[in-house]
Amino acid sequence: MPELRKDPIIGRWVIIATERANRPVDFARDEAVAPGKDGCPFCEGNETKTPPEILAYCHPGRAPNSPGWWTRVIPNKFPALKIEGGLERQFKGIYDQMNGIGAHEIIIENPAHDKKYFELDPKKAEDVLWAYRDRILDLRKDPRMDYILIFKNHGRAAGASLAHPHAQLIALPMVPISVRREMAGGANYMNFKERCVFCDIVRQESLVQMRIIDENNDFLAFAPFASRFPFESWIIPKIHDSHFENTEKERIATLTQILQSVLRRLDTTLKNPPFNYLIHSAPHKESSMPHYHWHIEIIPKLAHTAGFEWGTGFYINPVPPEMAARYLKESGQPAQSGANSSASGGGSVA
Amino acid sequence: MPELRKDPIIGRWVIIATERANRPVDFARDEAVAPGKDGCPFCEGNETKTPPEILAYCHPGRAPNSPGWWTRVIPNKFPALKIEGGLERQFKGIYDQMNGIGAHEIIIENPAHDKKYFELDPKKAEDVLWAYRDRILDLRKDPRMDYILIFKNHGRAAGASLAHPHAQLIALPMVPISVRREMAGGANYMNFKERCVFCDIVRQESLVQMRIIDENNDFLAFAPFASRFPFESWIIPKIHDSHFENTEKERIATLTQILQSVLRRLDTTLKNPPFNYLIHSAPHKESSMPHYHWHIEIIPKLAHTAGFEWGTGFYINPVPPEMAARYLKESGQPAQSGANSSASGGGSVA
Repeated sequence: MPELRKDPIIGRWVIIATERANRPVDFARDEAVAPGKDGCPFCEGNETKTPPEILAYCHPGRAPNSPGWWTRVIPNKFPALKIEGGLERQFKGIYDQMNGIGAHEIIIENPAHDKKYFELDPKKAEDVLWAYRDRILDLRKDPRMDYILIFKNHGRAAGASLAHPHAQLIALPMVPISVRREMAGGANYMNFKERCVFCDIVRQESLVQMRIIDENNDFLAFAPFASRFPFESWIIPKIHDSHFENTEKERIATLTQILQSVLRRLDTTLKNPPFNYLIHSAPHKESSMPHYHWHIEIIPKLAHTAGFEWGTGFYINPVPPEMAARYLKESGQPAQSGANSSASGGGSVA
Repeated sequence: MPELRKDPIIGRWVIIATERANRPVDFARDEAVAPGKDGCPFCEGNETKTPPEILAYCHPGRAPNSPGWWTRVIPNKFPALKIEGGLERQFKGIYDQMNGIGAHEIIIENPAHDKKYFELDPKKAEDVLWAYRDRILDLRKDPRMDYILIFKNHGRAAGASLAHPHAQLIALPMVPISVRREMAGGANYMNFKERCVFCDIVRQESLVQMRIIDENNDFLAFAPFASRFPFESWIIPKIHDSHFENTEKERIATLTQILQSVLRRLDTTLKNPPFNYLIHSAPHKESSMPHYHWHIEIIPKLAHTAGFEWGTGFYINPVPPEMAARYLKESGQPAQSGANSSASGGGSVA
């Protein structure tokens, strides 16, 4: 059973995956090679190589765990947390721990090994987001779970061990510290300004325009003013909403459109970069929160993080977000005569 | 001039290094190759390849910026922050920013390109820590600076762009958020328990012993109960002290001894792993703090951090700290007949 352990100083929880423990040399380097297309357990036709599916969007009459699906959700074969058991919160000397209870699922985005999310037919791409929502609505029934995080790792350097496009879901028995910090910051701002800080960001970015990557009726994609990483990109609903899973049918379509657009722009501009994205949403046990506003954070993994960043929670970003936004915005436009979009920008955006 | 920008939600400051801005393709991969021994600006004999030195421990009569030193401090040639100018705090719409004022220095640990810190003669290794202290005592005179961080990156994967052993110092015009969080956590614990949480950790670890890596009269080296990373190792003074720069002559010697010991153990056990270390100390403008306790955090960089960690501030650690501590502890012992220290441990430490 994995353990959840709480840092006694700052209160951060860590999963200690005791059962994966190996000899130190196994951790000396991260050199594992992902299987190619042939051995890929996520490819259509290899359904029996995975644990039995939890959900599949598929053709009528298909037998479970067989071909004929376009979005498929399975339990992670090597879960960070286990679904069976009680939390058994307890002390260990001055420390606090509990059993590593939670859910860890894989959302396989499509049956093809090499098809990226932005290359999917829009209706199929929408179904990936519907799968996120369906799994959240199911797992929130489990009273042990306090938070459900959807995230995606693309590329080895971003932590993906399998190349086949997939996202992940982890349900946790506590609200993670970074969401709690965002909620606390939002509450603090609300207390002072009587407005949602995220709504103010939407207004500010719409006003100055220079960090906007793309937008549609419902969503804004922008490079945050204090971006931690080069080409960090956020997608946020224009109208206040604290919970991702509240998103209705029409907005799932416009969200799909802008998510495909931003991922395509990053792929074009940075040549298939490794990246992570994650959905930050209010905890599902909270009712509608006026000071929290769900959003997607997309983080290309272009450079190593070093001691300074780990030690301070401070980041050094060599690419001003105004420049990143301009490159990403232009990457969606057809090339103009006499102007190469990737060379037309200088470095002096204030 | 670099900019310091504040995240409006959680209050985290980010350095936007506007002057380094390049075309996106330059950020697409982190493939720069460090110069070998010949072109290394930190090697003895190449002193003119660096900015003029700030400090050097050297043979008497040596001319500045010439051979004959054993520890040398220089300004970073590509500083993240600039030392000249005023902060000019201002708003930009709803956002906050200031000029990127600060110091960014390099502490070259020894004249030889390939000599690791733990291989240095103990007296020379002490001088590296004296250099940290001397630079802190000098820079704390600058009223613009609120925090001085010492850190080290070793190996490409840990962010080191030059292989020659060196540490770095960054002086900042604010206290970084991770130190503020540790101070807040310490204050909260003090409020509830009327004891220092760090002192309680020292007592707890001494009591149960199973996470101790090494110790001497003044310092304890241990694997934290809620280690974020495999083989994460902390060094902490046994007697309460909030500020690293208070460390007196005798304790600099015992600190050097345990720092060399832990780095040697990590090198042996993990075969020269990339790593970061950093010194967390109370802000120098604060007088002695009963609830904060300085320490060194050493983080081997063995695996990529993925979306889950970035998104949650939550970590999944596949190596229980009890196991890491045992391997590191044993690595300092002479091999016993019939027992290979790296194979003698199993996986079942509770």
